Amino acid sequence: MLNNKMTELLQIQYPIIQAPMAGGITTSELVAEVSNAGGLGSIGAGYMTPVQIREQIIEIKQLTSNPFSINLFVPNEFFVIQDEIDSANQVLQPLRDELGIRDEDRMEIPQFEDELDTFHEQIKVVIEEKVPVCSFTFGIPSAEVIRELKQHNIILMGTATTVEEAIEVEKAGMDIVIVQGSEAGGHRGSFLLHAQESLIGLMSLIPQTVDQVNIPVVAAGGIMDGRGLMASVCLGASGVQMGTAFLTTSESGAPAIQKEEILYAHEDQTVLTRAFSGKWARGIKNKYISEMQQHEATLPEFPVQNALTKGIRSASSSQKNPDFMSLWSGQSPRLAEKQTVSKLIKKMIAEAKHLKETL
Amino acid sequence: MLNNKMTELLQIQYPIIQAPMAGGITTSELVAEVSNAGGLGSIGAGYMTPVQIREQIIEIKQLTSNPFSINLFVPNEFFVIQDEIDSANQVLQPLRDELGIRDEDRMEIPQFEDELDTFHEQIKVVIEEKVPVCSFTFGIPSAEVIRELKQHNIILMGTATTVEEAIEVEKAGMDIVIVQGSEAGGHRGSFLLHAQESLIGLMSLIPQTVDQVNIPVVAAGGIMDGRGLMASVCLGASGVQMGTAFLTTSESGAPAIQKEEILYAHEDQTVLTRAFSGKWARGIKNKYISEMQQHEATLPEFPVQNALTKGIRSASSSQKNPDFMSLWSGQSPRLAEKQTVSKLIKKMIAEAKHLKETL
Repeated sequence: MLNNKMTELLQIQYPIIQAPMAGGITTSELVAEVSNAGGLGSIGAGYMTPVQIREQIIEIKQLTSNPFSINLFVPNEFFVIQDEIDSANQVLQPLRDELGIRDEDRMEIPQFEDELDTFHEQIKVVIEEKVPVCSFTFGIPSAEVIRELKQHNIILMGTATTVEEAIEVEKAGMDIVIVQGSEAGGHRGSFLLHAQESLIGLMSLIPQTVDQVNIPVVAAGGIMDGRGLMASVCLGASGVQMGTAFLTTSESGAPAIQKEEILYAHEDQTVLTRAFSGKWARGIKNKYISEMQQHEATLPEFPVQNALTKGIRSASSSQKNPDFMSLWSGQSPRLAEKQTVSKLIKKMIAEAKHLKETL
Repeated sequence: MLNNKMTELLQIQYPIIQAPMAGGITTSELVAEVSNAGGLGSIGAGYMTPVQIREQIIEIKQLTSNPFSINLFVPNEFFVIQDEIDSANQVLQPLRDELGIRDEDRMEIPQFEDELDTFHEQIKVVIEEKVPVCSFTFGIPSAEVIRELKQHNIILMGTATTVEEAIEVEKAGMDIVIVQGSEAGGHRGSFLLHAQESLIGLMSLIPQTVDQVNIPVVAAGGIMDGRGLMASVCLGASGVQMGTAFLTTSESGAPAIQKEEILYAHEDQTVLTRAFSGKWARGIKNKYISEMQQHEATLPEFPVQNALTKGIRSASSSQKNPDFMSLWSGQSPRLAEKQTVSKLIKKMIAEAKHLKETL
């Protein structure tokens, strides 16, 4: 039951993928430990330079000989609108002052052409370093990119938040589709509809998707233990992808303060916001999210807003002040535990086996 | 596995409750057929008069000797603000004109004291007619009401949308808690937080709730088949409550046009709106919801807005025009089928058994 086409394609023992959380959380230790424990570790490389990516791949290969994955953001065209930036900066400046940030004028505003170039360089590194699995968020790469990766026998996974998006992922030739339920923490992977129109709970999203696609479906969102794994399998998924559950493990690179915030949060304390990056994402509601709520509609788009808030997020983090950090979390923080990766995976599999026997 | 404390309390064969959909959907045939097929049929009596309730109970008893349930709305205090009513009427008048409605001036505006009186009369009928099970939405009735119902050995079920609400339901002395996931169609049962802050997907809501309460937990939202039943059981639920799945059966009293709209809808076509009743509810997006979106924040509260839109909804329905009807649906309309109650329940149980064997 836990071995199927998905585990076969990925050559892993258990159908458990560690979600590719961007921003320093997916340390080489985390990725390698997950793969060593029989799951699939993933580098959240969306914001990484090609050089950083190569370094981390080399490091992970020294820590595991099992398959692992890398996740890239598909660049979406965006426009740099100075008026939007100016009005966002007006709102953000008092927060920068409060945190004592002085170098906001050195902030680099991203340009679409540069992002596209970086994406192609990232792909090149993935191919050169023979990463076994590559997943994508925020859309589907061009047919050329997909063809090139497949020529190098790299297994491809796409992210979908609706049945229609899952069908597009399959049509593009990807091997596996990850369906992201409304429960999921972090960025919404939506690319056909607005993120707020594609908030489908996994109880609805999994069965409706598996009825429409032939590739393996992996469920993501709020899954933390053997119960979530078995429920996903009952609904027709081949496996699960978990973010928050791995974020609080010892091997994760998340700041201690972020781990603590999750460990003490309740299921009704996460909200969707685009105030951090310009794209909708789910995190624990804090002072920053509350204060920015009235400006949500007029903020610059991704990744411009992300660049504008970078200093605020990192100053808040280094001052151990959760008020202005992006505390991404799914809707199941009550199930988060402070534990090692190996313990988490072992417990999940034991729970799943026990459940199977008692059903 | 499908027999547990919940089926024992309710004295039913299968852990399947037909959701108490208000507004004429839960005909006596539907309720009785569900109970005859081994589930628990439920009267959606929220908007019914005590006389109507008594008539339907008597009718159902002639059609089944199995237990069935009745659902009541717990009255929440509300205020009748003439300014709000006037500005809502200004927006609604063009729609009334479009539908050729002429008697809007005879509209009766509800008063809280009357609603409370009606609620107590409803309770009296439930006791006199010895309805075996009574469930509540929109809150928890007073300790007196609960005590009285329990003295008459009526099994009580409360509705919760967060862990905290489920804890309150248990504390109040109810026997079973129904957790309503964000996937659910129709009205949100939230009573502690605003409805929009308590949109928790079932993958998150079920396990976090069962970890915190001792009474049986029933899952509601997007569940349509044996897969959803087994997934809910894996997550720790004792059973399921299904609305949309029963709404499209032959025995349901929903207008044919509403059934058709659901049968052709996709998972990303439902939205939350308070434009029909003043309380947030999930339905298929239509012309009315779209046009009212900009006024959501300023509309009168429940049940005032409900009274204001009654004529519009019924005219739209009798004109077979889905544009202004409340097309309540959960997030799994792709799984809805035109079938009899008996076929739906038999298929679910067969699927669940098959799944158990193949896991």
